[in-house]
Amino acid sequence: MSKTSPGNFFEDFRVGQIIKHATPRTVTTGDVALYTALYGTRFAVQSSDAFAQSIGYPRAPVDDLLVFHIVFGKTVPDISLNAVANLGYANCRMLKPVYPGDTLNAVSEVIGLKENSSRKTGIVFVRSTGWQRDGALVLEYVRWVMVRKRDENAAALGDHVPRLPTALDAKLLGEACPPIKAQDYDYGLAGSPCRWSDYEIGEKIDHVDGMTVEEAEHQLATRLYQNTARIHFNQFIEAQGRFKRRLIYGGHVISLARALSFNGLANAFHVAAINGGRHVAPLFAGATVFAWSEVIDKTELPNRTDVGALRVRTIATADHPCGDFPAKRGEDDDPAVILDLDYWVVLPR
Amino acid sequence: MSKTSPGNFFEDFRVGQIIKHATPRTVTTGDVALYTALYGTRFAVQSSDAFAQSIGYPRAPVDDLLVFHIVFGKTVPDISLNAVANLGYANCRMLKPVYPGDTLNAVSEVIGLKENSSRKTGIVFVRSTGWQRDGALVLEYVRWVMVRKRDENAAALGDHVPRLPTALDAKLLGEACPPIKAQDYDYGLAGSPCRWSDYEIGEKIDHVDGMTVEEAEHQLATRLYQNTARIHFNQFIEAQGRFKRRLIYGGHVISLARALSFNGLANAFHVAAINGGRHVAPLFAGATVFAWSEVIDKTELPNRTDVGALRVRTIATADHPCGDFPAKRGEDDDPAVILDLDYWVVLPR
Amino acid sequence: MSKTSPGNFFEDFRVGQIIKHATPRTVTTGDVALYTALYGTRFAVQSSDAFAQSIGYPRAPVDDLLVFHIVFGKTVPDISLNAVANLGYANCRMLKPVYPGDTLNAVSEVIGLKENSSRKTGIVFVRSTGWQRDGALVLEYVRWVMVRKRDENAAALGDHVPRLPTALDAKLLGEACPPIKAQDYDYGLAGSPCRWSDYEIGEKIDHVDGMTVEEAEHQLATRLYQNTARIHFNQFIEAQGRFKRRLIYGGHVISLARALSFNGLANAFHVAAINGGRHVAPLFAGATVFAWSEVIDKTELPNRTDVGALRVRTIATADHPCGDFPAKRGEDDDPAVILDLDYWVVLPR
Repeated sequence: MSKTSPGNFFEDFRVGQIIKHATPRTVTTGDVALYTALYGTRFAVQSSDAFAQSIGYPRAPVDDLLVFHIVFGKTVPDISLNAVANLGYANCRMLKPVYPGDTLNAVSEVIGLKENSSRKTGIVFVRSTGWQRDGALVLEYVRWVMVRKRDENAAALGDHVPRLPTALDAKLLGEACPPIKAQDYDYGLAGSPCRWSDYEIGEKIDHVDGMTVEEAEHQLATRLYQNTARIHFNQFIEAQGRFKRRLIYGGHVISLARALSFNGLANAFHVAAINGGRHVAPLFAGATVFAWSEVIDKTELPNRTDVGALRVRTIATADHPCGDFPAKRGEDDDPAVILDLDYWVVLPR
Repeated sequence: MSKTSPGNFFEDFRVGQIIKHATPRTVTTGDVALYTALYGTRFAVQSSDAFAQSIGYPRAPVDDLLVFHIVFGKTVPDISLNAVANLGYANCRMLKPVYPGDTLNAVSEVIGLKENSSRKTGIVFVRSTGWQRDGALVLEYVRWVMVRKRDENAAALGDHVPRLPTALDAKLLGEACPPIKAQDYDYGLAGSPCRWSDYEIGEKIDHVDGMTVEEAEHQLATRLYQNTARIHFNQFIEAQGRFKRRLIYGGHVISLARALSFNGLANAFHVAAINGGRHVAPLFAGATVFAWSEVIDKTELPNRTDVGALRVRTIATADHPCGDFPAKRGEDDDPAVILDLDYWVVLPR
Repeated sequence: MSKTSPGNFFEDFRVGQIIKHATPRTVTTGDVALYTALYGTRFAVQSSDAFAQSIGYPRAPVDDLLVFHIVFGKTVPDISLNAVANLGYANCRMLKPVYPGDTLNAVSEVIGLKENSSRKTGIVFVRSTGWQRDGALVLEYVRWVMVRKRDENAAALGDHVPRLPTALDAKLLGEACPPIKAQDYDYGLAGSPCRWSDYEIGEKIDHVDGMTVEEAEHQLATRLYQNTARIHFNQFIEAQGRFKRRLIYGGHVISLARALSFNGLANAFHVAAINGGRHVAPLFAGATVFAWSEVIDKTELPNRTDVGALRVRTIATADHPCGDFPAKRGEDDDPAVILDLDYWVVLPR
């Protein structure tokens, strides 16, 4: 019996296949402290037990993206160890708040397969789900990833491409946000007077600040999530590869952009869903990440007067301040845009 | 309504103004572990619940400087986002021990203003206070900082420079140190036989060891404190600035010097007060920090036979071992002295 | 009284001498999170309270090597501050599981002394023991280290070299592994179907993955362990030394190799003993660590049907993938092999 796993190749996947992922993980206040040290996040609900309790949480919940990264990390050894590229996310929904002490597990279902015309690779679509020890679901998302074939001559089983909505319906949002006592939400402590009603569709916000990324930082982050994708850690191999460098985990960019977005979206305390996300270009250590956001939709939530939702598009760039709201990559070798993220956040009304 | 905060400029401040700062923070054992990893601090009271309990604490208290940095970090977005330079601290007093689970908040009062003759900047004096969710004060300090004016032609309101004592009176010390069972203090476990009575005024101690600082380390530290000052994080902008590099948060230097001072002051388990501190020169990643200390005063504490206080001046240097007790910056470009800190520590008698 | 400790020199040690080390340390979930971020370790028992409880632990135990590093760190100021080289370990046995909240202490007994023919240095053999606040022993090990003499002319007391077994007897293993409910061990969640009975003596496993080490990472790790050995931290001094660089703590290499070994030994959830270990060559930041293992023995444990033990030899290399199972250092300046570790691990049967 082979003791090491070579990971799955394109021809190993079947539509309908269920893959239970390894390494359950108990999230702790240690993980939360590291997450703060890695990104400098300042959302009051996640930062303070006292603040969270004042609006009705039992204690400070774990940052939604930390939960996402831990669940995502578990899927890597089975889904994307032989990936060429992570192509996109969709339909990511937070279903339940997670607190320190909770244990996270992950399972994926293969929901689509499409061989590429080169016959060297194919696209695998999976719906991954994070769940707690009692079986309660905490998050689900779809991602699609280009995976190598082990054998170019292996027969494909026929394409099956799932239909995915462009954005999650607002009726499906908010389950991971308990009812809050909006009247007790302290806007002074939270860092901004701007509530849900203060934002308008079409409004653009430059988040101003920039954060330079070091190799040690993204490695610490990605290992914290027990994400083993080789391209993030192995300079000896990557030096011989396409980029000559270690590639930074895309989720690290998402968390940096989210932390930067505090300056402009301080009361958007909860990421309820990710409609879609694209890593437009790779990020490497030494670059400085900037971000800006546009409010692209706004909605009440069913049966709730405490909070409302904004659909936000956040663009992150490398070495390019966002005062000019760049939405495309620049000419030639300008790295400019690296992330284009479409998501729903929840704010007090 | 503008969604991002430009920070306050000199003409935005008024003497007597009270500013309640954002982002309450629950301190956890995760923060404590990171603090240990960042500085290698070894004071037994903060390192061990068992040791702390043996002398009467309910558990290991959070390091005084970690409390200071977290409170300080909260004041940055309101006080020093447009600062040219942090000029000094004074009158910093620890008022209550902080334990994991406690939530910290901060408020500042503007106690002085002085426009500079250039009319481009002015000095803002604030007294900042850290408090817990129940309102109990945990620390207070004064700092003064040179802040840009938004508009050089804005009228100044007249100078008001507060009088500050050179050093805190010993009568005001010790509130954050509960009565300890000094007879149960284990000097072997604590790492040194030297108690309060073994130190003499005028005594100089070379702390011998040096610690090289990496970019990832000071960024992790400063984000852990949710300190957003741009100069520490944004290499893209700083590359075009005065130093061409990210400047290391001054508090990082204070914590490094304090950790190095263990070798010579192992039983100085509590920083009771900071009389004054100056960042004599900037520190940049790649440099190695050394430190030495002089005992400049020594006092009993009112109504206490368990502990006494030493007033210590600690000098930190960059790339300069401290066997020669350097007190001034060297000639020309010698970075030598970077920190000159005057503070009270408490030791068992 | 000198306030700083110069550390002990060869002539300061006596056979039979007992040295109680400083700085007790309460291990927390913060330390555990950092350990995960530093190495990306994925063993399910240590990662998940739920998994650990399902097989009979009260909660997830602290990683055996984290316990080892913390105990080892305490011995440095007394044993190896003036060391030229850490020569080897032997007879390391885990005696009791450690959980977050436990406080660790360390004591050493000098069990051998041998002056080198140069009379400039000598070898000190110590048996170090880690214990909890209630006196329960958690681990013991022997190490020998080459220590400078303060005075070359100091008389030696006569050599005493202890006899050490090559490997620990299997009868002495397993005390730190409570009886587990092997039937409830979930191999899917643990990441591999391979149990004790699937491994054969002589079997070689290439762990495939590589991990590049950054200066900030090994410094954070070594400070987390409160290990103060100067050679790891002080670039200003080391730039003038033999290697021109900071040397990475050997224990950091052991933990990297152990984390890499998950890919091939995922169910080897407990390091029961270290028979011997040699740091064959130094490791420096920027290098990528790889590892491979050979099963060199296999044994049942007395009165236990739940778990069995494998004796494993793990070789770690720098900048050399291990598909060719390198066991010796390469020619000339090839750094290749850096660690040769012989240890017992426990797996469910």
